[in-house]
Amino acid sequence: MTTSALSSRELTELVEAQKVERVLYDYAYYLDMNQPDDLAALFTSDCYVAYGPDFGAEGRDAYRKTLDGIGTFFTATSHHVSNVVVDFDEEMRSATVRSVLYAWHQYTKEGKPDGHFFGQYHDVLVRDDEHGWRFTRRELRAAGVVDFHVKKQIPIGRASA
Amino acid sequence: MTTSALSSRELTELVEAQKVERVLYDYAYYLDMNQPDDLAALFTSDCYVAYGPDFGAEGRDAYRKTLDGIGTFFTATSHHVSNVVVDFDEEMRSATVRSVLYAWHQYTKEGKPDGHFFGQYHDVLVRDDEHGWRFTRRELRAAGVVDFHVKKQIPIGRASA
Amino acid sequence: MTTSALSSRELTELVEAQKVERVLYDYAYYLDMNQPDDLAALFTSDCYVAYGPDFGAEGRDAYRKTLDGIGTFFTATSHHVSNVVVDFDEEMRSATVRSVLYAWHQYTKEGKPDGHFFGQYHDVLVRDDEHGWRFTRRELRAAGVVDFHVKKQIPIGRASA
Repeated sequence: MTTSALSSRELTELVEAQKVERVLYDYAYYLDMNQPDDLAALFTSDCYVAYGPDFGAEGRDAYRKTLDGIGTFFTATSHHVSNVVVDFDEEMRSATVRSVLYAWHQYTKEGKPDGHFFGQYHDVLVRDDEHGWRFTRRELRAAGVVDFHVKKQIPIGRASA
Repeated sequence: MTTSALSSRELTELVEAQKVERVLYDYAYYLDMNQPDDLAALFTSDCYVAYGPDFGAEGRDAYRKTLDGIGTFFTATSHHVSNVVVDFDEEMRSATVRSVLYAWHQYTKEGKPDGHFFGQYHDVLVRDDEHGWRFTRRELRAAGVVDFHVKKQIPIGRASA
Repeated sequence: MTTSALSSRELTELVEAQKVERVLYDYAYYLDMNQPDDLAALFTSDCYVAYGPDFGAEGRDAYRKTLDGIGTFFTATSHHVSNVVVDFDEEMRSATVRSVLYAWHQYTKEGKPDGHFFGQYHDVLVRDDEHGWRFTRRELRAAGVVDFHVKKQIPIGRASA
């Protein structure tokens, strides 16, 4: 393999993929730190967010409202994001991203066992010169949960046999 | 540090490492989605796979057979791969890869507690122009397990004192 | 986006970030393999390490001493590092790094339940031509723990409401 095999497109994708990954990691960080305003700023104003089939929001303002109360509902959370796969569109203005999540939740309510979430994020991020990369679509799908407070999940769609 | 310090080799390794990582993440994805044919396609025809000292396969066809039944054995799995370290050979035709795995397993059998696997993947991938990077060797070693169905593991080789 | 938008600085950061990440992953590997001398070699001689408010070390020699006994205290550990974010200084001689940790611990003491740690690493690494990147500061902060042996943690600083 010679250098000439390296296209500028490949290098540009590497640089931008790292920036995209960082948005995912900042999201996890702000969530665990309970900084809902910083979380909401990672989304476009016309974003779509789905945490479950009956639990989501259209638009950043509505999404921000769903974050009210998480500060008192959990005493702690820890979000671990891995297996990140990024695909760009031709103009590198949007990125389709798949990742895996293991999240641990400690509830404020006494006696409630810790909740565990195992699943996938399916995201679309868009880029503009002012804000860089931001989520325009974020959907959380569950492989499975243990003692988790949200009862209905969007399944990952595992083949049944 | 100036630009001239950046060799084309370093950039090529970055680009190829990202492709190698993607094969690891696609493996985890297909496993959790229960898509055994897509899984097998990530391996070379002469691959060697070891999930345990008494549990593995030589060749893609034999490996594919070991995947029969996982669709009914588990109701769900979730594979989280991180700490990925990639080393290439001189010609960049093969890659030696070490990563860490946390895997959660929910069994079909009623009353069977969830199984947890903590360990390492030790892989060799090879590249050809037709298929890109594929596993030619994949070995799973266990740091430890909790309520896991496979009783004998390949140990990571932790120093004893 | 055209190629000319790609600065050599961005490419250099990518290359160096990968090397920095590897130090984090080697640390986790040596810890799980119980190789304390290899662990200590990842630190500068004047490093500062904090595992808790009352549990840390100043200098590599003192840090090395804190590792004595882990070989008999645990039968196994598994450290999963993800969400790695790297920021470099202007001259690329130091890197400030944030990452997330899920660590599983199996104790030697009979009947002691497995310990789980969920939290963040906050690191500073420095680079010299002889050793490459090494930790000069490593601080472990806890989102929360379950059945963990260290009772007092440095908190991540989650906002309270």
